[in-house]
Amino acid sequence: MKKHVHYADYILKSGRLLELQETESEAQGKPAHDEKLFVIVHQVYELWFKQILHEIGSVMAFFEADTVDERQMELIVSRLRRVTEIQKVMNQQVEVLETMTPMDFLEFRHLLTPASGFQSLQFRLLEARLGLSRSQEWVRNLGSDAAYAELKKAVEAPSLLHLVDLWLSRTPFLATSDFHFWDAYQSAVRTMLADDRKVIQSNETLTDEKRKIELKSNQNMQTDFDALFDEGKYGQMVASGEKQLSYAATHAALFIQLYRDEPILQLPFRLLTSLIDIDELLVSWRYRHMLMVERMLGLKIGTGGSSGAGYLRGTVLGRKVFEDISALSTFMIPRSALPTLPEAMHRRLGFFHTYGEKE
Amino acid sequence: MKKHVHYADYILKSGRLLELQETESEAQGKPAHDEKLFVIVHQVYELWFKQILHEIGSVMAFFEADTVDERQMELIVSRLRRVTEIQKVMNQQVEVLETMTPMDFLEFRHLLTPASGFQSLQFRLLEARLGLSRSQEWVRNLGSDAAYAELKKAVEAPSLLHLVDLWLSRTPFLATSDFHFWDAYQSAVRTMLADDRKVIQSNETLTDEKRKIELKSNQNMQTDFDALFDEGKYGQMVASGEKQLSYAATHAALFIQLYRDEPILQLPFRLLTSLIDIDELLVSWRYRHMLMVERMLGLKIGTGGSSGAGYLRGTVLGRKVFEDISALSTFMIPRSALPTLPEAMHRRLGFFHTYGEKE
Amino acid sequence: MKKHVHYADYILKSGRLLELQETESEAQGKPAHDEKLFVIVHQVYELWFKQILHEIGSVMAFFEADTVDERQMELIVSRLRRVTEIQKVMNQQVEVLETMTPMDFLEFRHLLTPASGFQSLQFRLLEARLGLSRSQEWVRNLGSDAAYAELKKAVEAPSLLHLVDLWLSRTPFLATSDFHFWDAYQSAVRTMLADDRKVIQSNETLTDEKRKIELKSNQNMQTDFDALFDEGKYGQMVASGEKQLSYAATHAALFIQLYRDEPILQLPFRLLTSLIDIDELLVSWRYRHMLMVERMLGLKIGTGGSSGAGYLRGTVLGRKVFEDISALSTFMIPRSALPTLPEAMHRRLGFFHTYGEKE
Amino acid sequence: MKKHVHYADYILKSGRLLELQETESEAQGKPAHDEKLFVIVHQVYELWFKQILHEIGSVMAFFEADTVDERQMELIVSRLRRVTEIQKVMNQQVEVLETMTPMDFLEFRHLLTPASGFQSLQFRLLEARLGLSRSQEWVRNLGSDAAYAELKKAVEAPSLLHLVDLWLSRTPFLATSDFHFWDAYQSAVRTMLADDRKVIQSNETLTDEKRKIELKSNQNMQTDFDALFDEGKYGQMVASGEKQLSYAATHAALFIQLYRDEPILQLPFRLLTSLIDIDELLVSWRYRHMLMVERMLGLKIGTGGSSGAGYLRGTVLGRKVFEDISALSTFMIPRSALPTLPEAMHRRLGFFHTYGEKE
Repeated sequence: MKKHVHYADYILKSGRLLELQETESEAQGKPAHDEKLFVIVHQVYELWFKQILHEIGSVMAFFEADTVDERQMELIVSRLRRVTEIQKVMNQQVEVLETMTPMDFLEFRHLLTPASGFQSLQFRLLEARLGLSRSQEWVRNLGSDAAYAELKKAVEAPSLLHLVDLWLSRTPFLATSDFHFWDAYQSAVRTMLADDRKVIQSNETLTDEKRKIELKSNQNMQTDFDALFDEGKYGQMVASGEKQLSYAATHAALFIQLYRDEPILQLPFRLLTSLIDIDELLVSWRYRHMLMVERMLGLKIGTGGSSGAGYLRGTVLGRKVFEDISALSTFMIPRSALPTLPEAMHRRLGFFHTYGEKE
Repeated sequence: MKKHVHYADYILKSGRLLELQETESEAQGKPAHDEKLFVIVHQVYELWFKQILHEIGSVMAFFEADTVDERQMELIVSRLRRVTEIQKVMNQQVEVLETMTPMDFLEFRHLLTPASGFQSLQFRLLEARLGLSRSQEWVRNLGSDAAYAELKKAVEAPSLLHLVDLWLSRTPFLATSDFHFWDAYQSAVRTMLADDRKVIQSNETLTDEKRKIELKSNQNMQTDFDALFDEGKYGQMVASGEKQLSYAATHAALFIQLYRDEPILQLPFRLLTSLIDIDELLVSWRYRHMLMVERMLGLKIGTGGSSGAGYLRGTVLGRKVFEDISALSTFMIPRSALPTLPEAMHRRLGFFHTYGEKE
Repeated sequence: MKKHVHYADYILKSGRLLELQETESEAQGKPAHDEKLFVIVHQVYELWFKQILHEIGSVMAFFEADTVDERQMELIVSRLRRVTEIQKVMNQQVEVLETMTPMDFLEFRHLLTPASGFQSLQFRLLEARLGLSRSQEWVRNLGSDAAYAELKKAVEAPSLLHLVDLWLSRTPFLATSDFHFWDAYQSAVRTMLADDRKVIQSNETLTDEKRKIELKSNQNMQTDFDALFDEGKYGQMVASGEKQLSYAATHAALFIQLYRDEPILQLPFRLLTSLIDIDELLVSWRYRHMLMVERMLGLKIGTGGSSGAGYLRGTVLGRKVFEDISALSTFMIPRSALPTLPEAMHRRLGFFHTYGEKE
Repeated sequence: MKKHVHYADYILKSGRLLELQETESEAQGKPAHDEKLFVIVHQVYELWFKQILHEIGSVMAFFEADTVDERQMELIVSRLRRVTEIQKVMNQQVEVLETMTPMDFLEFRHLLTPASGFQSLQFRLLEARLGLSRSQEWVRNLGSDAAYAELKKAVEAPSLLHLVDLWLSRTPFLATSDFHFWDAYQSAVRTMLADDRKVIQSNETLTDEKRKIELKSNQNMQTDFDALFDEGKYGQMVASGEKQLSYAATHAALFIQLYRDEPILQLPFRLLTSLIDIDELLVSWRYRHMLMVERMLGLKIGTGGSSGAGYLRGTVLGRKVFEDISALSTFMIPRSALPTLPEAMHRRLGFFHTYGEKE
């Protein structure tokens, strides 16, 4: 039988939720007004982390299954999009914390040393589950052995990046008897690179030094493409950690983005886009957070004993989780230059049956 | 041969863009500082309107074609989602205009009488193209016969709402030899309504008066459902203007939302969601705009001679364009209660070929 | 001696925060994925409510004191501005909840009947403390006698609106021996109203019916002004509940807005603006919330047994808390028409000493 | 006599505004749908730049005058806050541009080579007027001699940073007969630095290497403080370009932030905060823009022939305009440790007359 539910029990868990905001300064009998904001803002972050982990976990479960049913793709993409909506709120939320001035922070900052946001288990779990490769140094000081064990497990388990890689690698349409995408793609690519070189060499506004830099950059792209076209070279980049996406997955991810209009690729395309969105919002949040810390502390050391702003600056421009996917735009060529898919391939990528035709 | 393009030519059209912000108070030799903001904010709105019309127009062109190719669905949905991103920026932009205080507005308000935002041809075109049914009274005072003619044409041409209705009405899967969705759906619905009645009758917190109101509301739902199940009744609601979505389209839109996981329905589901998003953001913008006008003018008459705030209040809670689609949530029933689709139907709604399976 | 604080203890209260998100569907052994979002989104709202109550409470404490020290004005305004930043995040957050589709909501909706957001004690406390006059009917069903008692106390205690009214009423500069603001103000106002009447009568685009409406609106303004200029009439409007701001406070609030550049009025002006901002964001949030409920439920009854959308529509355009302050823009006249303050008055409104002068 | 103004003339300048969105691909007879978005988004940016320059220009005019009247402070701060509201919209707007996929960009990208956003005169003017010190290398390729001349003039004229510096330097309250802020401040500061050193030395979670880094950072702070306390050293940092804020202005800016509650310092405090906000939003916009370019181009060269992403990465973490002001949080000490101002000083920093007292 259905029981009678009251909001105070259902949401607030009989009031327990609202008993957890006592501040350290209150506990010590000298309340610092803004410490309440500091605690609540971080508690809200933790609730959002929990929700994000809930969504990411459910998406990973789909990819861990033996088959990823096409009927699940819309749901998967929706849940990832929900993650990005949460991230947007989290980014907006930095402005709330910034209503606290450096002077107001100083009123209670000494009380919370050496606690630090870096100690948030959930945030570290999120990074690990997404697939951020992080030096082991940071897997410490989580406050308990249980927390350490949980993070270790997450670091060692397959990440979302890894699961998506496996799924991409299983894409069946890349090499069929009637379609040799790779050949046409390679030749089109070579034309583009040569064109770029011409642009650099004929651009009169460049100084000699700049031109040298640009040609070097073009050379680097050539190197990247060579790796893309040379399984051995690419493998070395994977081995060295320079690339994280496997050779097969890279090809599939490119294929999906180049031919995203084909019905069976439409949701996979949205999936890849959502992963890039998540990545971008995550680094944006780190960046906004860094600016906030700089503003609050200047050059002071962080509460955890680390030179807050300094450390943060170092991480902000670090590697993104799905960088190998977003960097695929490097390898894109204009639609007009794409080889046309043969009719049989079209059929293979379409629906069993269509609708929407006028009679 | 490729010409050399400079930003000042390409974006600013050789500077012409930045020559158009002269204010009336400047023209009269007594610059009112904030009039510049007023002009620029409205110019930005007009640029966004132009972009939205560009997107809506391209989507309408897809639906006007004899066939809506499934390969275009992702593009259609992406363009509608772009519209919503623009709308979010437009909503945010109200906060910029609100940095102008009522006193600052008074410095130049008298100069622009009786100009009014209601005279924006592009906004009226947007409403017309989406399909907002609007009394003819407002099709006036657009400043020129050409503008009037353009709006008249848009009002008389098929709207996006109409085109989507036609497309929905062509959905082929609703009635097949092995699947009678309608029967199962009707019986499930009746159970739900009966349950709701029980909730109302047993809810002790309701006063007698409230209970009466609720039961009336339940009765109204019953009436709506009766119309849904009775083509004649529904037709009367369409004839009276109470409903705008046709009988066939309503069924298809429901089907899509109830079985959105089926591959061929995933993008159509996104399409419907995007239309609802656009509607919601549009009324939100009107609402924010109304609050801003109230704040600026209080009870003063608007520059166009209308009692600004009063008129706005009247329109804010008016009919949405795609209200018949969003109101379909009235008719939804829990997934667990949905009739299971037969295997043949599953195949019909799926891809010709699948991928993503583990070996 | 300073103790060693760990993030897990400080923010998560030794993990207790993250134990409170169990859902009803999980408790019953059939987890509905999206119920987690529903719970967490509402918990986040409750945390924000707590923070807002913290800020509003501290601001009220300043106004309850015998003297509001000018040195506290910046702090007061900053805290109110913090409230608006939180409200912006709360408004943005509606988009997170809207990633839940009506079908997903149906998976667990029946489990939470008849819990309802209207039962949130904190939200009701917030409304009461700000000063929203609300019929007694809603002061019920808060789940416990203690909650009822707390709300009753808040309803009966002086609200922020009331405290600000008292503070405004104490403004000392309105009537001095050398300055008769009220006379000049009245005559300037009468000129403006006459001008507006001319605009209406000469506006050819108005139908006769419209013109009648506008003239009625102008007449209403005249009535409002008459009340402003006639203490007896104004008193009747206060007595009938049509106005909530006292006669003296209304004059002061107008004075502050008209002469906001005078140093001693700058922060009071910001204060009034912040109150209007809070009001506007609060009704915007209700409006967004209403749209979300309509989208989720259509015409279904709310979980609390009320016709959700119907009830919400009724409240959305209801009275704002600080409406009498924002409506003062009705009574504003252009700066050019304002009487010039005498030199002695300038000095009275300025700083003891100035800085910033070039030598 | 008042003329009759129509929206189409007033906002659209007789339609001219909407004639300027033709794209290069349209001009060449092969319209690329998304180029319209590209053009319009950049035109909107330019309109916002124009508005920001309008506000910044008006603020600079106030500071260029012989005296900055305290009565203008609220207006100055409001205009700067308006700039930040515009910046928030501009940041949000990046999400609109990101609805364009890399493949869609490729459809028209070749047509606009070598146009580049770096060629926006208005953006360069904005940087120059704010006071961003930029190597001369970039003062080129603005498309015309007139543009070059205008930027050169802006670079050579006093910037907002410079004007604010002069204004701060005139602050009269720092050294009076009865108040020696500097002595007490120095001793309090020294205590804080010593405490930080102890935290580092006793923090067991630090590796030896980390500890060394932290101590170095502490040493750097000591150096910064030494410069603050030693006019000669500070002067060298200014001479070398390491610091941009003058010695006197630095002291005043610190004083304002430490004693921001004093009435005459409340608006100056808001002013400094607004400058920091503008800075932060400007670098955030650059960062978001960089992420967008990376996503769009990967490692491809930018349309202007520069390695877009690479160059952008270099600038993103570059110097902020008002960095010396925001970095003052380095030098802040808790309120409890601040020397109490003598009564005479309080009077000096307050209003001539007060209000708000209860009788």
